[in-house]
Amino acid sequence: MKRFVVGIDVGGTNVKLGLVNSSGRIISRTYFPTKSYIRSRNKLIDAIAQAVLRLLRAARVPQSSVLGIGLGLPGLIDPQRGFVNFLPNIPGWKNVPLKKMLEKKLRLPVFIDNDAKIVALAEWKFGSGRGFDHLVCLTLGTGVGSGLILDGRLYRGADNTAGELGHLPLNEKGAACNCGGVACLERTIGNRYLVQRSRKIFGKGLEPQAVGKLAKRGDARALRFWKETAEHLGNALAGVVNLLNPQCIVVGGGVANNFRFMRKTLIEVLRRRALRVPARRVKVVRARLVKDAGILGARVLVEQSLGRSS
Amino acid sequence: MKRFVVGIDVGGTNVKLGLVNSSGRIISRTYFPTKSYIRSRNKLIDAIAQAVLRLLRAARVPQSSVLGIGLGLPGLIDPQRGFVNFLPNIPGWKNVPLKKMLEKKLRLPVFIDNDAKIVALAEWKFGSGRGFDHLVCLTLGTGVGSGLILDGRLYRGADNTAGELGHLPLNEKGAACNCGGVACLERTIGNRYLVQRSRKIFGKGLEPQAVGKLAKRGDARALRFWKETAEHLGNALAGVVNLLNPQCIVVGGGVANNFRFMRKTLIEVLRRRALRVPARRVKVVRARLVKDAGILGARVLVEQSLGRSS
Repeated sequence: MKRFVVGIDVGGTNVKLGLVNSSGRIISRTYFPTKSYIRSRNKLIDAIAQAVLRLLRAARVPQSSVLGIGLGLPGLIDPQRGFVNFLPNIPGWKNVPLKKMLEKKLRLPVFIDNDAKIVALAEWKFGSGRGFDHLVCLTLGTGVGSGLILDGRLYRGADNTAGELGHLPLNEKGAACNCGGVACLERTIGNRYLVQRSRKIFGKGLEPQAVGKLAKRGDARALRFWKETAEHLGNALAGVVNLLNPQCIVVGGGVANNFRFMRKTLIEVLRRRALRVPARRVKVVRARLVKDAGILGARVLVEQSLGRSS
Repeated sequence: MKRFVVGIDVGGTNVKLGLVNSSGRIISRTYFPTKSYIRSRNKLIDAIAQAVLRLLRAARVPQSSVLGIGLGLPGLIDPQRGFVNFLPNIPGWKNVPLKKMLEKKLRLPVFIDNDAKIVALAEWKFGSGRGFDHLVCLTLGTGVGSGLILDGRLYRGADNTAGELGHLPLNEKGAACNCGGVACLERTIGNRYLVQRSRKIFGKGLEPQAVGKLAKRGDARALRFWKETAEHLGNALAGVVNLLNPQCIVVGGGVANNFRFMRKTLIEVLRRRALRVPARRVKVVRARLVKDAGILGARVLVEQSLGRSS
């Protein structure tokens, strides 16, 4: 019986692979650094195919038991046509027919999608978002993004770019963002801008993790840092709550390790700024799957693409 | 054959009724002022039922030819249970089982929904939004709201409050809005705030219609007034475009009579502030159905609720 899926999370730093069984458990895994192949697109694709075969061999799972391969990539993906349109952080990836290329190498069905969307699928089926039909799954890190589950399915929009929550304007005027816009949420709470702000407060640039450690010890400046971060995020989420009336917002990504220092303020801001009914409805919770979300979500992608429920 | 639908648009000023045939044409209509019945909820419901029967008699359409009755109401509606939860502008309406009450009086299937959602259904099936699977249908008037068509169906959210675009924060700080929030879009471009702003520019408060007349004659201050209005609206829509990646934004409501003075700026702001791919995708067009949208959308609501395609 075809019951396994290989989930692959292609990041700017590492490519992580996991063999996922039918109950959503990762029974075997491997990874390799993306940078070794960053100069050649085709070598990276080769390395991915080789790693899949190695993973199956090591777990003694024959290819005939594999339902399919799912990949999440950090960029603009066309899941219908199976094309990587563009990866902003991995050079040389523009209009690559990745699905077809990997299917030829592996002789297995391959499905690809944007990584934030795959994380949302994972949290929805296996994580903190279980049981919700209307879900915003937020990723806080270098970039700020989200995947939207609306009416019980992944919402992609016209070009698969839906969910770009990091580029919601926080204000009408403000600093220029990398995206070309101004005053975007990501321009305020994206990792590097958090470090910038920490410099003003602590006299030197601290990574969010370090500020988290200080907050844990009760450092007042660190606690205020997270409160302010939560206020900015809450202001943007108030708009999302009013627009989408979700049941749940799942907060994930590296910065979400500090969720406990932001939760109370986030909920306060939503109660204060969003409309009464949707503000009372929405739960704000921390993501559960963290580093495995990309691999587990790939299983959901493969099952949904093949028309199986998961 | 059951081929007619009675569409009813319950507004703060008038209740408008129309008999809609299967090709989406209004073949007969009537209306009465809401105010005559504003003191008694039950009298208003009686008046609606009487008006339906009069409309059918006048058009010589027997009740047996009517598929159902659709009503749009300005407030929080529970279409599944058929309850009016709350109407902010018509006193005495709180948790009213309107569907059941009217079905008892009329012996026909009755369906109810929020008016902005019904307008979106109308523009999607019969108006400017035809053919689009991902559509934001904006209403600009006293209130600023929208109906969302996502993945080819009306998106309601967890409590049927989705689409409250007027309460997207334009800024992190700003003037208090009626909704309890601050710096909402509606607090800047809702009708009364447009009148307030006109006072600063023209020395006296002008209704949007009057500023439109001046703009038509080429008055520079009036043109600037609409340009500024479009800038505010565009700033909010940039976030919506990034979040939802819609194919089309339909701009309706009374203030949209001045769409021609806002269109260019709206598109400019979206190109400038939204991400490249979704900004290039989205069309911004004026609503086509205007005063009939509430009646025509009711036909779509009835058909969809009865499981028929329209």
